[in-house]
Amino acid sequence: MKNRKFEELVTSGNSKIVFLIMDGLGGVENDEQSGTELQVAQKPNLDGLAAKAICGLLDPISPGITPGSGPAHFGLFGYDPVEYNIGRGVLEAAGIDFPFTDDDVVARINFCTVGSDGKITDRRAGRLATDDNIRVCEKLQKQINKHAQLSDILIRPVKEHRAVVAFRGKGLFGDLEDTDPQKTGELPLAPKALNEQSKSIVPIVADFIQQAAAILNDEPRANMLLLRGFAKYRRFPTMLDRFKLKSLAIATYPMYKGIARLLGMDVLEGITAIKDEFKALEENFSKYDFFFLHIKPTDSRGEDGDFAAKVKVIEEVDTFIPGLLKLNPDVLVVTGDHSTPALLKSHSWHPVPVLLSSQFCRKDKVAIFDELNCITGGLGRMESVYLMQVALANADRLAKFGA
Amino acid sequence: MKNRKFEELVTSGNSKIVFLIMDGLGGVENDEQSGTELQVAQKPNLDGLAAKAICGLLDPISPGITPGSGPAHFGLFGYDPVEYNIGRGVLEAAGIDFPFTDDDVVARINFCTVGSDGKITDRRAGRLATDDNIRVCEKLQKQINKHAQLSDILIRPVKEHRAVVAFRGKGLFGDLEDTDPQKTGELPLAPKALNEQSKSIVPIVADFIQQAAAILNDEPRANMLLLRGFAKYRRFPTMLDRFKLKSLAIATYPMYKGIARLLGMDVLEGITAIKDEFKALEENFSKYDFFFLHIKPTDSRGEDGDFAAKVKVIEEVDTFIPGLLKLNPDVLVVTGDHSTPALLKSHSWHPVPVLLSSQFCRKDKVAIFDELNCITGGLGRMESVYLMQVALANADRLAKFGA
Repeated sequence: MKNRKFEELVTSGNSKIVFLIMDGLGGVENDEQSGTELQVAQKPNLDGLAAKAICGLLDPISPGITPGSGPAHFGLFGYDPVEYNIGRGVLEAAGIDFPFTDDDVVARINFCTVGSDGKITDRRAGRLATDDNIRVCEKLQKQINKHAQLSDILIRPVKEHRAVVAFRGKGLFGDLEDTDPQKTGELPLAPKALNEQSKSIVPIVADFIQQAAAILNDEPRANMLLLRGFAKYRRFPTMLDRFKLKSLAIATYPMYKGIARLLGMDVLEGITAIKDEFKALEENFSKYDFFFLHIKPTDSRGEDGDFAAKVKVIEEVDTFIPGLLKLNPDVLVVTGDHSTPALLKSHSWHPVPVLLSSQFCRKDKVAIFDELNCITGGLGRMESVYLMQVALANADRLAKFGA
Repeated sequence: MKNRKFEELVTSGNSKIVFLIMDGLGGVENDEQSGTELQVAQKPNLDGLAAKAICGLLDPISPGITPGSGPAHFGLFGYDPVEYNIGRGVLEAAGIDFPFTDDDVVARINFCTVGSDGKITDRRAGRLATDDNIRVCEKLQKQINKHAQLSDILIRPVKEHRAVVAFRGKGLFGDLEDTDPQKTGELPLAPKALNEQSKSIVPIVADFIQQAAAILNDEPRANMLLLRGFAKYRRFPTMLDRFKLKSLAIATYPMYKGIARLLGMDVLEGITAIKDEFKALEENFSKYDFFFLHIKPTDSRGEDGDFAAKVKVIEEVDTFIPGLLKLNPDVLVVTGDHSTPALLKSHSWHPVPVLLSSQFCRKDKVAIFDELNCITGGLGRMESVYLMQVALANADRLAKFGA
């Protein structure tokens, strides 16, 4: 019922659902290795769980499509990843808990260095220190004159050379091309509308860039900025609204917290280690219906191309499974948002192994949690967007459709 | 081609298709049993058939969604179960071969008992005898004054405390809430429109309820009625129109006969035993192209939570497979409309095993007809609505799409 609001069928309940998401979990076999990262990892607890669970493979979007982190996660949470696709600017801003309003067009700022001819010499402003980023953002925010058509303009630092800007004003749209030419030796691009309705914001953005260039002129590194991922903010229906799930996100990286906030989840702050994520789950287990526990390093090590290190992350997560099972969640899902094979050093299109454990799951014959076994599992191969329906059904939180 | 009219591709033919539908066939393993109902059942003939067939799992609607009987069957017959979803009133009325017109808004009547304060004391009118139901319906039909905006009002008994009423009039819509509060000790609810276009029927329904209460006042049990499942009747394109299939339904329960009638199938009456259903198939085999043979007790025993009895029904059906095969249908499909695991005592979301046997099916390795084997079959996992396309193709009744 991807194209229908299956939330009409959602009922209330006391059951608890845990989504353990190992980012970039899926892999590809490698000539130097005897299999994929999941196949090589020693993970007795995950395999034991698979033996009592129903398994399958998830396509984040559809076969062959490599997703970004935003759509990959929206799909997992039952939000159609195409319909709910949003710009990087909004994702980045959500990561720092930006106080969005319905009138905001948001873009990501990359501070950069330009030469006296205006051409880019460093797209990351010499790997700007975060402290400098904070100082530069404050300076910009103080000195900028907001355009007459804006009710406000907000500039907020993120990390290193990255920041966000929100153009706040009634009736604005944000379908603009990036001003980042993606290489050094070129001039920053002028802002350009991708459709008719977004034309009115172009002079506003151009004015902002011109003022910013003047204000930053005396900076040694961050003497210019590039804008990327323009998007108009839109309010998403929350997990509570759609699924009657009071939801908690436990994540270490800002972007995943941001995704969770966009869906109305509560978000824990200040956690950096995997073991503390599982501890936080235990401490908060009585307070919520749904838990999104996000493991970042599987993806990071995959992006690094470090097969062995990705294997180690999987093995580390495996050691926390027994503790997690002691909490006795009604439904436990273990999967990834997408594949990040070390072989490819990037997100990929390969479907991701998934296991779902519940009293009613109808366990299958799969007893090893990896790509090749999961395709023979009882869930078969399905799009991620259906996972939430299956989880809610197993949690006894979905009524029958039709008479 | 769910969202497309694949019937454009349908060709005529002499081939015969049999759908043997064991209602609620799919199951779930149970701590006290060594597997699901299908796994425990001794069914050498179905297993032998599976060995020569192509197998898979069907999702009645989509993963995780538990269907009612109406949408579950519409899907099997190639009618999109979301698009063709209809109210219980129409399903119930179709079961008694109600003479629908395009101007009918239909609801199911539950006769009930109310106390002197008007509050419900028994929602089933003391399990009213069907004879009393017939008498009460005749009394109502005789004494009711049809509302000035109606061209007719028809009241027809079904069984026990259940009946149907059709409000016949031009331009009426039927999106109304049930008047059944679903518990005793409460007053029946007033009729309430769910949308603007259905507001005009509200006073008509209210007037009917008020008159009925007065007419039934002297009844010892059925002294009031509750209305449920309001729906405007709409004519479905028939199986003959869409698929060029002259179709026969062989079923023991009114609702399934009703579903078949809504799709233009001929329906045999007076059959109550499984053996007589198979006999009827044989007797009528030369007269039709398509046969819907419906087995009810798999679902009933599942709803009872009686695992062993559901196993026995499967074993009984198995004994009729050799006789069925002697008829030599070009395409034989064996599946269920949905799962009804004895463990859950209700319809469930679990996908249903399916086998399809034909000369051209491309048989797979599956040689045991059950949930865990079928997922490794050649059909994989698919939505029920695609089954009819596959059956027509195997019956050599579908032309090529595109040049």
